[in-house]
Amino acid sequence: MTQDAVLSHIDADLPNAIARLQDLLRIRSISTDPAFADDCQRAAEWLAADLRGIGLDAAVRPTPGHPMVVGHMDGPADAPHLLFYGHYDVQPVDPLALWESDPFDPAVVDGPHGKTIRARGASDDKGQLMTFVEACRAWKAVNGDLPCRLTILFEGEEESSSPSLVPFLKENADELRADLALICDTGLFQSKTPAIMTMLRGMVAEEVTIHAASRDLHSGMYGGVAMNPIRVLTRILGGMHDDTGRVTIPHFYDGVPDLDPEIAEQWAALGFDHATFLGDVNLSVPAGEQDRTPLEMIWSRPTAEINGIWGGYTGAGFKTVLPAEAHAKVSFRLVGDQDPQAIRQNFRDWITAQLPADCTAEFKLSGGAGGSRMVTDHPLFEQTRDALTEEWGEEAAFIGCGGSIPIAGHFKAILGIDALLTGFAKDDDNIHSPNEKYDIDSFHKGIRSWARMLGKLA
Amino acid sequence: MTQDAVLSHIDADLPNAIARLQDLLRIRSISTDPAFADDCQRAAEWLAADLRGIGLDAAVRPTPGHPMVVGHMDGPADAPHLLFYGHYDVQPVDPLALWESDPFDPAVVDGPHGKTIRARGASDDKGQLMTFVEACRAWKAVNGDLPCRLTILFEGEEESSSPSLVPFLKENADELRADLALICDTGLFQSKTPAIMTMLRGMVAEEVTIHAASRDLHSGMYGGVAMNPIRVLTRILGGMHDDTGRVTIPHFYDGVPDLDPEIAEQWAALGFDHATFLGDVNLSVPAGEQDRTPLEMIWSRPTAEINGIWGGYTGAGFKTVLPAEAHAKVSFRLVGDQDPQAIRQNFRDWITAQLPADCTAEFKLSGGAGGSRMVTDHPLFEQTRDALTEEWGEEAAFIGCGGSIPIAGHFKAILGIDALLTGFAKDDDNIHSPNEKYDIDSFHKGIRSWARMLGKLA
Repeated sequence: MTQDAVLSHIDADLPNAIARLQDLLRIRSISTDPAFADDCQRAAEWLAADLRGIGLDAAVRPTPGHPMVVGHMDGPADAPHLLFYGHYDVQPVDPLALWESDPFDPAVVDGPHGKTIRARGASDDKGQLMTFVEACRAWKAVNGDLPCRLTILFEGEEESSSPSLVPFLKENADELRADLALICDTGLFQSKTPAIMTMLRGMVAEEVTIHAASRDLHSGMYGGVAMNPIRVLTRILGGMHDDTGRVTIPHFYDGVPDLDPEIAEQWAALGFDHATFLGDVNLSVPAGEQDRTPLEMIWSRPTAEINGIWGGYTGAGFKTVLPAEAHAKVSFRLVGDQDPQAIRQNFRDWITAQLPADCTAEFKLSGGAGGSRMVTDHPLFEQTRDALTEEWGEEAAFIGCGGSIPIAGHFKAILGIDALLTGFAKDDDNIHSPNEKYDIDSFHKGIRSWARMLGKLA
Repeated sequence: MTQDAVLSHIDADLPNAIARLQDLLRIRSISTDPAFADDCQRAAEWLAADLRGIGLDAAVRPTPGHPMVVGHMDGPADAPHLLFYGHYDVQPVDPLALWESDPFDPAVVDGPHGKTIRARGASDDKGQLMTFVEACRAWKAVNGDLPCRLTILFEGEEESSSPSLVPFLKENADELRADLALICDTGLFQSKTPAIMTMLRGMVAEEVTIHAASRDLHSGMYGGVAMNPIRVLTRILGGMHDDTGRVTIPHFYDGVPDLDPEIAEQWAALGFDHATFLGDVNLSVPAGEQDRTPLEMIWSRPTAEINGIWGGYTGAGFKTVLPAEAHAKVSFRLVGDQDPQAIRQNFRDWITAQLPADCTAEFKLSGGAGGSRMVTDHPLFEQTRDALTEEWGEEAAFIGCGGSIPIAGHFKAILGIDALLTGFAKDDDNIHSPNEKYDIDSFHKGIRSWARMLGKLA
């Protein structure tokens, strides 16, 4: 059988596939820090060259930020046209001291579930996007042609709020439109069950700066009489949750739907082991709204989180300063019909209303997209579900996702197409953290999963 | 008259005195940061050499931290023996971007009150300590001998909690004991009235770290279900003051005395212009306990201040991380009989009692000294007050001080001697801030003030 030959080819070629992924992982494509702009460009060029090697008509396409990679390949006229999406940019690596090896020297090491590749981006998202590329490479090598028409889109700004994405989609909508989008940036359920994400949280983020005195002050001379902006910032943000874990910003829960009883039942059947999920990172008590289940906290409830805070003297030793300003980065995960713009404005108003005399607040926006729910009645959803079930030996689940993948909403809004989200990351992949890793079995079976999906189309 | 000749010599030698101060200011003696240890050593050596040039028997004396400088000079057998104290170490310079010139390239520039020297340490404390050294140099040059016996002690750890000071004083008590200590590390009242500090606040400082998960987490995967230590830190520290500005830590006000009505009357007579004091740094409303006057807030009431806070991602762009830990540096200014050890323990207990499940707090102490009140009936207090009044043309005031100069308490406790604190800094000297400066007239009239004080002894 054609598919079996492809799977055998994948197995035999795995060492080469790992070496290719390592090449890509060596490129320091941190999109949020302008110092790494050249590395982002290099990652895009590496990918475009690799796609051309498989036979795609692929090119690096400039944007006002980091470039896109777009590739096309023809297929049988009546075959479905797939748009595959991934992102080649990665998160910053700090705190660097906690890495057990250089984050950009991708080592294959022993991990908690066998061999694993440790590097920034190994799981999010370079390893994941290469599962699909490798499946296409193998299929082409064995059969000469793909059983579908294919467009590939790789983005370089996913980890920095995708400023160029919407304009690029709008300008190139006719070129990018397909029958269905495939997005590989999600994970297995509980690190073992293959899953298709059908509910995602959106996100809006704000950086807030509280200004007080016109300069840093000495706490001996001014302490007690001058307002300290860190005191203001902690007082306000310290009240962002009430004792039950509920967010206190007015109108925050406007547009948050009740969970569909059918979905609640399906989720209950998944047997989510929150004790192990939290225990793996040395936590035990779910920290969200106390009247919700842990899965609801992650998949269907909105959050408000302080992702960074800083102000005053933070170096070694002590400096008795009253700083002129204090800062925080705050992000909100959104669900249902929560309006990102309204959340942003309500947050700003809520901060401003609590400012004492002599203090002002300055806000800097960062991204913004609502939550989304996938339509699951496209025939390719069932075919992909079957392919995943066959490869992993376990029924693939339709699940929710706490993360934000706004691209799915953009594909729907701008290209008019549905998206299917699946991926092979594990809960302990340490994405966005030190020692990010992608297990060899995620990579290997991920490639085989896509090959099986192509087999369904053949 | 001898004194007039000395004052004339001081006037004529001022350009050389400024050049010597500039030499000292070029040395980057930041004591809190171990990277600058060699610079601290160099500053000590520079001072010892300068004192030897005046005729003192002076040497750099090692400690487990940065060295002391100790110098001695004999005088008439029946003359008083003075111990002069200053510190050669300086605060860090961040945020460096806000400096108008290199903090270690001491430029003489036009300031708000005429010519000024802009550099880190210009006012706190290198410029101040050199006023006394220059007065001695001038007196020696004109008269050959000082009218007193003199011991000089320069410390290099004042800005980093003086870890070596108490052991050094204890080990060398017999050598350092004198009739009175002179400490030059304070300022003019309202930038123009000469003043002797008779009431100082103490300080205790703590660095607190809140630990939650065993590693940084992705807020998409864990947001809502995992406890965020920044949320815990802001909630707890945001409650450190109530709505009236009062500190909420239990037993915080134990040992805080009511203000003596006589002192209250004297302070009222000083006509402190808090509107200008605050207005100079773009503030208007006193931020302390709302039932206290602004001078009380600074001089006689304790404070709790967050001097630094940090956690999560604080770089450019955004990173949706739930950090494993969050940190703050908190300091307390103490008055009266507040016990530094009790305050520290009460703070730790108060934090710990508010920790949610899965969180722990780690504390790192930094210094600790109670407030102090000077005895003012030593004859040298009146002589110094007269000298200051003559030089500045305005009655010298006995005032309080919001800052902490624990050395005065150590001199009393270990050497058994009283201390006299005076100095010539101005409110807008930006000590501990960018663009620190010391006005040439502070420096010049400061030198002349000490010369007049020596004249009273002659």
